[in-house]
Order: sequence, then structure tokens, then C-alpha cells
Amino acid sequence: MSAPAKTLYPASKKERSKIAIIGAGAVGATLAYACVIAGHASEVVLYDINKAKVEAEALDIAHGIQFTPMSSVSGSDDIEICRDADVVVITAGAKQKPGQTRLELAGATVGLMEKIIPSVLEVAPNAIYILVTNPVDVVTYVSQKISGLPFNQMFGSGTVLDTARLRWLVSKETGVAVQNIHAYVAGEHGDSEVPLWSCAEIGNVPLRHWGPTLSGGLFDNELRERIREDVVQSAYRIIEGKGATNYAVGLAVTRIIGAVLRDEQRVLTISTRLEDWEGISDVCMAAPTIVGRQGAGRVLTPPLTLAERDGLTESAQRLRQAARDLGY
Amino acid sequence: MSAPAKTLYPASKKERSKIAIIGAGAVGATLAYACVIAGHASEVVLYDINKAKVEAEALDIAHGIQFTPMSSVSGSDDIEICRDADVVVITAGAKQKPGQTRLELAGATVGLMEKIIPSVLEVAPNAIYILVTNPVDVVTYVSQKISGLPFNQMFGSGTVLDTARLRWLVSKETGVAVQNIHAYVAGEHGDSEVPLWSCAEIGNVPLRHWGPTLSGGLFDNELRERIREDVVQSAYRIIEGKGATNYAVGLAVTRIIGAVLRDEQRVLTISTRLEDWEGISDVCMAAPTIVGRQGAGRVLTPPLTLAERDGLTESAQRLRQAARDLGY
Amino acid sequence: MSAPAKTLYPASKKERSKIAIIGAGAVGATLAYACVIAGHASEVVLYDINKAKVEAEALDIAHGIQFTPMSSVSGSDDIEICRDADVVVITAGAKQKPGQTRLELAGATVGLMEKIIPSVLEVAPNAIYILVTNPVDVVTYVSQKISGLPFNQMFGSGTVLDTARLRWLVSKETGVAVQNIHAYVAGEHGDSEVPLWSCAEIGNVPLRHWGPTLSGGLFDNELRERIREDVVQSAYRIIEGKGATNYAVGLAVTRIIGAVLRDEQRVLTISTRLEDWEGISDVCMAAPTIVGRQGAGRVLTPPLTLAERDGLTESAQRLRQAARDLGY
Amino acid sequence: MSAPAKTLYPASKKERSKIAIIGAGAVGATLAYACVIAGHASEVVLYDINKAKVEAEALDIAHGIQFTPMSSVSGSDDIEICRDADVVVITAGAKQKPGQTRLELAGATVGLMEKIIPSVLEVAPNAIYILVTNPVDVVTYVSQKISGLPFNQMFGSGTVLDTARLRWLVSKETGVAVQNIHAYVAGEHGDSEVPLWSCAEIGNVPLRHWGPTLSGGLFDNELRERIREDVVQSAYRIIEGKGATNYAVGLAVTRIIGAVLRDEQRVLTISTRLEDWEGISDVCMAAPTIVGRQGAGRVLTPPLTLAERDGLTESAQRLRQAARDLGY
Repeated sequence: MSAPAKTLYPASKKERSKIAIIGAGAVGATLAYACVIAGHASEVVLYDINKAKVEAEALDIAHGIQFTPMSSVSGSDDIEICRDADVVVITAGAKQKPGQTRLELAGATVGLMEKIIPSVLEVAPNAIYILVTNPVDVVTYVSQKISGLPFNQMFGSGTVLDTARLRWLVSKETGVAVQNIHAYVAGEHGDSEVPLWSCAEIGNVPLRHWGPTLSGGLFDNELRERIREDVVQSAYRIIEGKGATNYAVGLAVTRIIGAVLRDEQRVLTISTRLEDWEGISDVCMAAPTIVGRQGAGRVLTPPLTLAERDGLTESAQRLRQAARDLGY
Repeated sequence: MSAPAKTLYPASKKERSKIAIIGAGAVGATLAYACVIAGHASEVVLYDINKAKVEAEALDIAHGIQFTPMSSVSGSDDIEICRDADVVVITAGAKQKPGQTRLELAGATVGLMEKIIPSVLEVAPNAIYILVTNPVDVVTYVSQKISGLPFNQMFGSGTVLDTARLRWLVSKETGVAVQNIHAYVAGEHGDSEVPLWSCAEIGNVPLRHWGPTLSGGLFDNELRERIREDVVQSAYRIIEGKGATNYAVGLAVTRIIGAVLRDEQRVLTISTRLEDWEGISDVCMAAPTIVGRQGAGRVLTPPLTLAERDGLTESAQRLRQAARDLGY
Repeated sequence: MSAPAKTLYPASKKERSKIAIIGAGAVGATLAYACVIAGHASEVVLYDINKAKVEAEALDIAHGIQFTPMSSVSGSDDIEICRDADVVVITAGAKQKPGQTRLELAGATVGLMEKIIPSVLEVAPNAIYILVTNPVDVVTYVSQKISGLPFNQMFGSGTVLDTARLRWLVSKETGVAVQNIHAYVAGEHGDSEVPLWSCAEIGNVPLRHWGPTLSGGLFDNELRERIREDVVQSAYRIIEGKGATNYAVGLAVTRIIGAVLRDEQRVLTISTRLEDWEGISDVCMAAPTIVGRQGAGRVLTPPLTLAERDGLTESAQRLRQAARDLGY
Repeated sequence: MSAPAKTLYPASKKERSKIAIIGAGAVGATLAYACVIAGHASEVVLYDINKAKVEAEALDIAHGIQFTPMSSVSGSDDIEICRDADVVVITAGAKQKPGQTRLELAGATVGLMEKIIPSVLEVAPNAIYILVTNPVDVVTYVSQKISGLPFNQMFGSGTVLDTARLRWLVSKETGVAVQNIHAYVAGEHGDSEVPLWSCAEIGNVPLRHWGPTLSGGLFDNELRERIREDVVQSAYRIIEGKGATNYAVGLAVTRIIGAVLRDEQRVLTISTRLEDWEGISDVCMAAPTIVGRQGAGRVLTPPLTLAERDGLTESAQRLRQAARDLGY
């Protein structure tokens, strides 16, 4: 009988890729699940302070490993589990307490980042960091300051999900595959976000030239506004119906991770530090950005109307003010 | 401007495959998510009596469609949404009320099946039916009687998940890929289930000949019993840590669905009606069974020890008694 | 011992999807390979008059089935193998004889279609037909006449491959993922084809606004012309180097098949019958077209410059003349 | 306008995985194609001394990149293109000259390895090396000596393909999915190879207990011998029909590469250096071996009959003699 593989052939860690997810709530656990199914890495780890919960989530996913292209998933309340991760995704946030204002909640979340980020940086200093915790734009801005990392190495999930929602709604109106809907939502991931309608296209047909939708209407102001409203309200409606949003965000962040680990140089509306973009500086918010192994790359400048630019400027001001209010 | 696609070219429904999932709880919704990512069908629908919940779950998944190979997912509280499904998966069950005994709960679940099955049969008479609701073996047996369908057309998810758990644990002990661990759990999906250790293999090496595990031990009775215990207790531990099990079962049932829709003729330990299998008859319980477009096919007869046979016989008796207790 | 699965549970053919490929040359065989790996259908069949060749190609692919999501691939010189196919792809063409002019060769190919199409229509009357045989636009036009099928049910692969080549070249110039390059080649699949530069975009940034490429240049006329030339010459260069083109065309046609079988409603530059499109009628040539289970759907009308329109009109005239020369 | 991504954000090469394929013949090019579709790495490179050919093959694949999960494929006649590859696959071999004996041909191939291996080792010293060139077992043995690498770092594709062929044939006889056929071919990749029938299983049912096949026969000696013969003759029949085998071998080697890059610890019948395995030493030949990031790991020892052991011993002697004849 041969001796076991372990002693004879220690597996090299070289070139294996590892995704670490901080926070095993609905978003973190579902993201781990989506990552494992996608198979972008050979190892996915979950970290959470709730030991029983994080181990249960990891175990529940691990039992399905056989049906995926993956080899390993595990969970722990020890930050060591994140060591040498290639990508770290932060989904952990403060829980709202009764009577707590929105600002107080954001303050508590920032306090959490001040604790988490230095500790994970110690074990994974070379990872690309993706913030998912809301309010994601402010959390990203603050976390960049806390970490001292180059801006490209840490960014937020921004409006990648909102962009997906917009495209899905346009797809429903037109019957065309969502993959052929080319449109972006930029600005804050939240109420002040701005669909960039003026440059939106189906195939290469500008949306404004599309002609009648499936229901016989046109992509006029009314329909556009209805869709914008729908995108912004989506999260609220889903939370009302099921208590949380987790599925689509899991796929959206898996997409971002894939762009990083495969060095795809994809255009994604991540939340990145803007400097002199459309006259906007010193803020993190969503804009079409090239994402690859370097993290956040060049920010694109699609042609905008004045109204769109004004909307983005306003979004930026809100976000800057929110950061100031938190002392950053 | 051309007229919209809809009026000119009505899409044929022919040969599009459709998966209907009954019940939008943690298992049903996660299963829908896993199916959409796997892309086994061009349409996934969710049905639940809770309209707000089922619409929210479907919407949350639909927003991520862009990142999957799928074209459509939707949810409704109208059973019509299941019309002409190729596969129907039932995950809905009765909720435990305070003070309710286990038997009373099972009775309530059977009552639910008596309502659901005739109504879904009306809209999807030719579907293959997969029961996931627990206690799955009894629910399958009873549902077959309710439906009057040929046995091959309706079966339960059985121990497909338990088998995956067993393999994962053996993989952890040996360091070998779970895909090369060939071992099955048969019998009840529950406490009396039986790992078929005597024919378990790694590659083509019988487990009993494997030699030292990674931790230096052997696959002796003690280790086997510890693994069996671990498989049986897994669900309890996960439920304790996170309140439900949903991820691995989502992948396991997606695997079964794939075997049906792709007509794969795969060996899976589904819960199927046994007649004169290892001397066991008139019961639904898990055994290695060939699954394809016809649903449940031939049941395999791996060589068993007397102890394994006895375990399976006992498991069958428990299940038959449980059905009798429910009046079936 | 149970009886074999075959007799007890005859597998239903219902809803299984089947792809039939006519012609087992380099293109047909590679396409079969790409289809099997993609797993778009549960059955792929190859038909060719050369029995030894078609059986060898199918066998060589079938041996690899274990590494794919597929269940079946086979080859035959009997057209019966195509029965009830959902998609039929025709790759067979006449072989050039010494001294034969291009027109004579096209005539021989048309003669071949006059033989093949009625015979395959007999066994697969409801299939969607995709012509790949060159000169693909003329062959599509003629084959539609031979078949008498509705135009949406039969179309050519057009410039789906040329569009992919264009995008790849723009990706190389800019470093952006090819998935974010939105640009089409329309018109003849051949020398007179027209890249639709004026509406080409990266993300939603018009190509003309992109700014410096990776090599420091601009997307000026010179670079555009160089890329166009490169797209047109690609096939010649590949044929010179390796004797045939087969790999990319295999993936491109697999993409088209996926759009049909999954009813994706994707925009693809297939060669479809144009009527009053940009003033062009009574010709088959490539234009951005919605493809789904219905086959060829709505043809999009992206905004064009006069020069682009003139180019397309000229392309159409060449193709109409070619059909006339062949007696259609 | 922002400056191009190139100057601002140089993409890190860290953790990107790279596959280098030596030889752009039918096997090498098809393997590159299968790798690109599988998406196991972010970069695939092809090397061949025929510059026109290797560039054409790479270009033909690159044009299809858009339809795959990959980001880059390229070809060159400069060995530099293989620098820092994680996996190097050698498919190049000497071409048979008229009148050349089999031994002379093998000698020419060994001469080729003596040239190629040192040059590729210089640019990719840490890669895992996979030999595919025939006679693969002898070429592997000799190449290990030429390279001086640890045995685990260099191995041959062995009978991974023959094993797939065997399973496919058993699947055809029984109607069971090839994924549930657990059987291996060991020994020489060639005429003296040995199907390990005695431990072959379907599900966990020993083949000898299976009962009637689809055609009503049994897995008796006659059927087993017919299948063995069929496996051995497969390559000859395919070569007769189409001039080469390339498709299944492309998928088989892609499987091996996946096991390495994802560190899967899969059991595969690669050709590895055997020392005291079933009494066999100092030879490279196929045996069930665990493959992961470390390359070739533990060799399994399934229970064999004396006849099987004798067959393997004979196979080993042939291979050792062949190496001696070549001066190794």
C-alpha cells in the first residue's frame, strides 16, 4: 500500500487562486455559493465572527462541491482563513438597532471597517479588495482611506447590479436578449443613481431610435422614468417580499471577481475613486470602468447630456457630504 | 422602423424546456437560483401561495439573468405558471406549529400534497415530478398514490444529498477528488439511512483496501461509523448554525433535473418505488437508480453485506409504517 | 438481476434537442466538436456521403463525450440520421476542380444544395436551417428558393465570424475585453463586406471618441481601413497558413445554434432575406438580426453614414448578380 | 479623454495561469481549441517551428475568443512565447519518412525531445510537463531523463483517452451514462494495454454482476475481449477514416490540465514513473494516478487478477526494452 498523497507530494499553493469573503450573511453566503458554482477559483473561504453560522454556511456549500468545478470551500471565525487570498470581498455591515438613524448606522458600519480592514490586510496584503457593504460608495471611499491602498486595489460593487436590473427591464420591454442591451447606471448605488440613457443602445441601435416596444409604446421620457424608478425601487420591493436581496448581487459580484481573476479588462460600473471625471473628483461612485487583474482601471467617458452630468454631479455631492458627516 | 419582433415572429414554444418549482422557501428559491446558473432549461418558474414572496424571489434571480446562460425566470401565486413544464419539483411543506407532533406535521404535509398535486397535474400532466419535501420518502410514496402516475414519472430526491455528503467526507479524509469517490447512501433520507460501505471505492480501489487516510488512520469501523454519524447529523448541524439547509440540496436537485432533461441515464440515489429490490417491496426509498428523460429507471443491485441488507430492510419498515400511520 | 433499462423504460424523445450537421469536412466536424463541448443539445449527428470519414469524425468526438455535458454523437452516410433535428446546419460544398472558374464552382455548390435540401427537408421539415457553405449569402438565397421555407426558418451564418474578427482586432488595439466591443460587420460575407464603424462603441463610448489606442494612435481612417482589410484578409491568411479555417467558425455557428435552441433573441449578423432594409431588397446578406427559436427575426437598423449605406447597396448588388448568374 | 489603460495600470502577471502547447499539428491545435473553450487558464500559447502554420492556428482560434471564457491565445515560432507557463504540453513529434522503421521514427522523436525540452525548460522551469507525443510512455521516460526534473513534474497522457474509449463502449452496451462507468485501462498506450476488468464497475455494481447488456448478452470474456480490441483498434480506425485522431485526445488532455491547474487531486491513468508498483519498476506507463497542482501524485493499487498483473508486467517489459533500444 502506498503512503498517502499528503506526505509524498505536498500540493504547491502557487498559482491556485483564492477568494475570501468577509461576512456570512445572506449576501456573503450566496456570493460564496455563486463563486463555487462559477468555479473562478480553486478555493473559496468565508469569514464571520459568528462561528456557528459561518461554519454552517460553508458546510452547506461544501456538501455540494461534487456538483461544481471547485475543489474547496471552508468557513471560520479566524481571520487567518483569508491568508494569501487573491480577492477579498467585504459584505459585512453593522446591524440596524431600534431608533438608530441612518447616519448612526453608517457610522457603526465605518467603525466595523476600521476593525476589519487592518486585520484582513495583514493576512492578504496583495489581494484586490471589493467592497459590497452598503452604503457601498461611502464605505469604499472610507475604506480606501483606512487601508492606505492604491485606489486601483480597492473598489466597490457600485451599480453593477443596478446596471443588470436596467438591462433586464429594457430586455423585457423589447424582447431582445439582455446581452445585447448596452446601457449603464452610474453615480451613487442608491436613490440618486443616473441611468445613462443618452448613450444606451440595443445592438448598435440607439435606444431613442428603437421604435415601438413590445407593448406598443416608445422609449419616451415617461417609460425611461418608469424604468429608472423601477431600478431604484427594486431592492426595496425585493426586501419587502423576502427580507433581503442576495441572488442577483451574488451573481453580479461573481462577475466582478471573474473579471479580476481572469484579467478580463471588462467594462463594469464599479464604484471607484474618481478624479476629474466629468468634472467630478474626490469621491467613490459608479462609472463604467475597466476591470482586470490590476483591479479598477481606466474610467470610460461616454457622451452625456447636460442633465445626466448634473445628475452625476449631484450624486457625487451627496456622497462626499455623507463621507464628511462620518468624519472622512 | 421595423415593427417589433413579437408580432412578426411569434416564438415557438416547441422544444424549449421548462422547470417548475413549487414552493419559494429557502430550498425552492435556492434551487431556482442553481437551475438558472446551470442553464439546464430555457425557462424556470416558481410557484408559491405567498404572492409577495414568490415574486420577490423570482425578481431577485431575474436581475442576475445577464450573468447566466438562461433566458427567463418568473414567479406567481397562480398555478397556471407551471403549464407544460417538463419537470416539476415540489419543495413546499407544512410549517411546524407549536405543540404539533412529528406525525401531525407529516399529516399536514400530506394534506398539502393532496391539494397541490392534482392542481399542478392539471397544467403539467406530462412532466417528470421530483419530490423534495420532507419526510421525502413517505411524501413520495403518498404522492404517487395521490397522483396515480406511473412510478417512473414521480420520484423523490432521496439521498442524493446524503451521498454527496458522504463522498465529501471521504474526500476530506483521503485528499482525493470527490468525483473519484464512488459510494452511495441508500434507504431513508433520515436517521435510518445506510452508507453502502462494502462496495465503496476510490478510483477502483475498495475503501477497505485504501490504507492510511490523511490523518494516518484506517477506514475501520470506527471511522466509518463516525462518517455515517456525520452524514446523518449534517442537516441538524447546519440548521442549528443557519436555520435551514438550502445550498447543497439546491445543487443536488439541479443535478437530478439535468439527468432528466438531458436524458443522461445517470446513477443517482433517488427515492423510488421499490418492488422486490433486495427483498424490499411497496415502499419508496433511496437506492442507486438510473435517471433519464423517462424519470426513474432501473434500480441497481450493488453487492451488499447482510448487515447492510438488514439496515435497508429496517429502513423500509420504518417508512412503510410512517405511510400507514398517515392512512396510506 | 433487474432487466436492462431499455425494455422497461423506453426513453421519450420528447423535448430532447438534436443538432444535425451536413458535411463532415473541417468546418462540419469542428462545429460538431464545438457543439458537443457547449452542450446546447442532447444529441449531435453528422451526415456526409463519405461513410468512412463521417464515422471516423463522429467516433473521434464520441470518445471524448465523458469530458463534456453531452450524451450522444454519431455519424452516418444515411440522411435518416437527421430525422427530427431541431437545427440543421449545412456545411457541405462542392470541391474546386482544376481549371474551374469561381462561377462554375458556385454552380456546382448550388447543384449540391438542389440535391441535399429536399432530402433533409423530408426528414426534418420543422428544423431551423443554417447555411454555412460559401459563398454563404448566395447559397442562402438560392436554398431558400429551393426549399420553399418561410424566410425566418432558413438563414446563413453571414458575418457572425467577421464581426467576431473585427471585435477581436479592436480589442487588441485597446486592451478592452472583446465582450465590451460593440461593432458589426454587415453585407456580403466576403470582399465587399462593410464594418459599421459609425455606430461602433466600446462600453458606450463611440469608437471615434475613444482616444489613443494602446499603440498611441487614434481610430482614424487609416486604422479603420487597416482593420477592415485585416478582417477581409483573415480567412485568406489562415488558409495560407493551415489550409482551411475551422476553429472560429465552429464557435461562431455554435453561438448561432445556442441562440436558436435557447430562444435567446440575440442580435447576430446572420445572412437573412432583406426586404426594404436600408433600401435593399430581394437579397440575402448579413445585417444585425434578432435570432431565437423562430430562427431569423427582426432586422435592426443602426444609424449609418451615407458611405456605409452605399457600401451595403453595392454589396447587395454583387450578391443579387451572383444569384442571377446562377439562374436564381 | 483618459490615457490608455496600458500606461496607467500595468496588469500584474501574478496568478494568471498560462498553458503552453508545443507543436501545432492536429493534436496541438485541437488541444489549444479545447483549452480555450474550457477556460482553464487566462492564456494559451502555441509554439511550433512552422511560423506560418502556428500563427494561422492561433489566429483561427483567437477569432473565436469572444465565444469563450478566455482572454488570450497566441502562436509563435519563438520559444519565448512559453515563458513562465504553468503547464507545458508537448505534442510535437518526428514525421515518418518513407522507408523509415518504427524504431528509427522513435529515435527521430527522441532526438526532437533532446532539442525541445532543454529550450522550453529554460523559459518555463517550474511548469508541470505533460507529454502527448507517441510512443508516449517511452517518450515520457526518456524526457524525464533529458530534463532531470522530479518525476512528479513530468508525465505522459498515458491511457486517459483509452480509458475514455473503454467507458464509452461500456456505456453503449449498457445505456448507462459514461460518468457512472468506473473502469480503467492501464499499461502501455498501445497494443499491449490492459483493461482492468476485474475491478470495473457501473455505479457500484461490479461489471461481472451487471447482467444482460442492451443487446441481451453478458459481460463475458468474448464481449470483454471485443471491447478491448475495439479500444486498441479505435485509433487505427479513426486514422484510416480521417487521417488523424485529434478531437477526443484534445478533450482528454484538457481534462488532465484542469486537474493540474485546479489542483483537483483526480484519479487519471496518466503515464507516470512507476517504482515497485505491482512489482513493476523503472518504467513510465499508465496506472490510476492522483493528479493535482503537484503533477503526478500517488499511484493507486486496485485489486488485480493474476492475468491482469501479467499483462501489465509484459507491457512494462516492452516499454523498458523500447527505451533501451533508443539508448535510454
